[in-house]
Amino acid sequence: MEDVVFKFYELRNFVHQVWIKSGFSEDDAALATNNLLEADLRGIDSHGVARLQGYLNLIQVGRINPTPNITIEAEALATATLDADAAVGLVSGSIATDMAIEKAKKCGIGMVVVNHSNHFGIAYSHLKKALSQGFIGISFTNASAFVAPAGGIERMLGTNPMCYAFPSPDGRHVVVDLATSAAANGKLEIAERKGKPIPKGWVMDTDGNSSTDPSILKKGGMMLPLGSFEELGVHKGFGLSAVVDLFSGVLSGANFGPWVPPFPAFAPMPSETVGKGIGHCFWIINPEAFRTRSSYDQAILTWIHRFKSSIPAVENIPVIIPGEPEMAYFSERMEKGIPLNPIVVDQLKKISEKLEIPL
Amino acid sequence: MEDVVFKFYELRNFVHQVWIKSGFSEDDAALATNNLLEADLRGIDSHGVARLQGYLNLIQVGRINPTPNITIEAEALATATLDADAAVGLVSGSIATDMAIEKAKKCGIGMVVVNHSNHFGIAYSHLKKALSQGFIGISFTNASAFVAPAGGIERMLGTNPMCYAFPSPDGRHVVVDLATSAAANGKLEIAERKGKPIPKGWVMDTDGNSSTDPSILKKGGMMLPLGSFEELGVHKGFGLSAVVDLFSGVLSGANFGPWVPPFPAFAPMPSETVGKGIGHCFWIINPEAFRTRSSYDQAILTWIHRFKSSIPAVENIPVIIPGEPEMAYFSERMEKGIPLNPIVVDQLKKISEKLEIPL
Repeated sequence: MEDVVFKFYELRNFVHQVWIKSGFSEDDAALATNNLLEADLRGIDSHGVARLQGYLNLIQVGRINPTPNITIEAEALATATLDADAAVGLVSGSIATDMAIEKAKKCGIGMVVVNHSNHFGIAYSHLKKALSQGFIGISFTNASAFVAPAGGIERMLGTNPMCYAFPSPDGRHVVVDLATSAAANGKLEIAERKGKPIPKGWVMDTDGNSSTDPSILKKGGMMLPLGSFEELGVHKGFGLSAVVDLFSGVLSGANFGPWVPPFPAFAPMPSETVGKGIGHCFWIINPEAFRTRSSYDQAILTWIHRFKSSIPAVENIPVIIPGEPEMAYFSERMEKGIPLNPIVVDQLKKISEKLEIPL
Repeated sequence: MEDVVFKFYELRNFVHQVWIKSGFSEDDAALATNNLLEADLRGIDSHGVARLQGYLNLIQVGRINPTPNITIEAEALATATLDADAAVGLVSGSIATDMAIEKAKKCGIGMVVVNHSNHFGIAYSHLKKALSQGFIGISFTNASAFVAPAGGIERMLGTNPMCYAFPSPDGRHVVVDLATSAAANGKLEIAERKGKPIPKGWVMDTDGNSSTDPSILKKGGMMLPLGSFEELGVHKGFGLSAVVDLFSGVLSGANFGPWVPPFPAFAPMPSETVGKGIGHCFWIINPEAFRTRSSYDQAILTWIHRFKSSIPAVENIPVIIPGEPEMAYFSERMEKGIPLNPIVVDQLKKISEKLEIPL
């Protein structure tokens, strides 16, 4: 079956109404909508409206609070800890980055951690506003455990993404947004739908044997950290994933490691808890605290230009700057619309019928 | 030939005198010595006294200034930019982290970037003091270009390390210290000395073909970013390396990309310059700004304990926490001494004779 193309504004209005009917305030619905759709616009189809039903399930079982009272648990001049009161991360992440922006204006940098939260979509979406105002942003979140540590065969870490975003005056921002696992979960799902094997180095079975089965996670298997193999530095991917977990969980007061609650509402919760909900960590940095805006602008333009004009491995196929493919998707999909998989369209139609919101 | 074992204090006194004879102040000599020897103590033999002659060469050709006047170029409440005045990074890195510690005490976080610097040894050494005072630390530096970007076949990035260090109350600090390339340069040198091929995924030749030749860099070859191959996420390693370069160079005002000056004093300098020297970036974070010390302590102890007791891939070989092997080296070498390769001993003997400092 073919993808169905929706205009951005159609989907946005629909999703916004869904959050409103689910009890969200206008402001929170706008944040949740923009952050969710940013994934679809940037071509990260696994993290966009395909997850809307998943979020609604979490509201239904009481794990996402549609009317949270987000509070400041601790604060210093340049830092804060927020208790998100079980808000969806799509909302709490942007409230945290707004706060970090204000702190960066005063102090040069602002760092805000969030506990008692839920999944926050793609890491980039919370940094978009900061980028548009000329700030550098960093965004981490932990997630439920599917990844084994180097030397281990137990699910201990999430795909724990890191996003680093650097503004460029020409709008070609450098955005490094990566799961610290060898492959993101979405890539397994795509291979599974196509019935294709996956490369060695992404996953292993319960005994720790390398596997090419894209459905291995349903059989108890595990994902591998970036680096995949001992000789290729899998301990580095494990270390980076640990960094995300330590900031997002251990520092923030959220759960960490195997105690991070799962995204699917039907999945059993960990039997113990070592913190509140899942956690995020954000840094916003004002380049003008470090050098003049014009010298920063010139330097990043030079950096981008030099990398784009470096010798490519394949003639006439220039090196890709981090964030470039997502920006190309964004432009195309804003203009031509967002293609959705028929399975996703079906899910949205069911939501449309149930909540009586036209799509 | 067998390694020769030196007591830590013997080496320390020797190296300290070498810096003094090279024109360093007592304070700077102490910093440079401690930071250099930290590498030997932690088993990172490539970055310790094995590099002493390299640093002396840089002093001789006037690229390292033994009496720098390190100045503050820009400052905000929680941030600063330092011009290191061509100091060795072994010194400027620790001065920058001291400043960041003071800012973290006032603001919760301190971030200091350094330009006009030189190589700073292992990234961890600058964070040791912060760890001992209970702070979290992050340390980045850029370095001269040996690594190709994903999709490229030109040397554009250094091995650009990242270090993240989290204090644990029992002293088993979690220290993630990694080159963002698939393998560190030192590993190539070891394979070359042993005449052994290296794993596929570490390097490629000038045409972009995968190579197992450990001396390929001398033939114009390139190192690969972490992830090594397209299907294993080499774009992620490229992205992380870019992040280090953007903070250390583009934000700080140092050189970046292929313009970073080389470590060997005899290697030609890049024909152009886009900034001053090489650059570093440090963050120091006070956990007590985010939650109580006791709750942070309990959380990180739980994290470490849970990972150590997770199911290992090989029975009775527990998962290794980042930083554990280096700490084991440290304890052993403080007690039993530091084994040095005879080639390195020869270099030190020559320095000893030339500067008339007994070893």
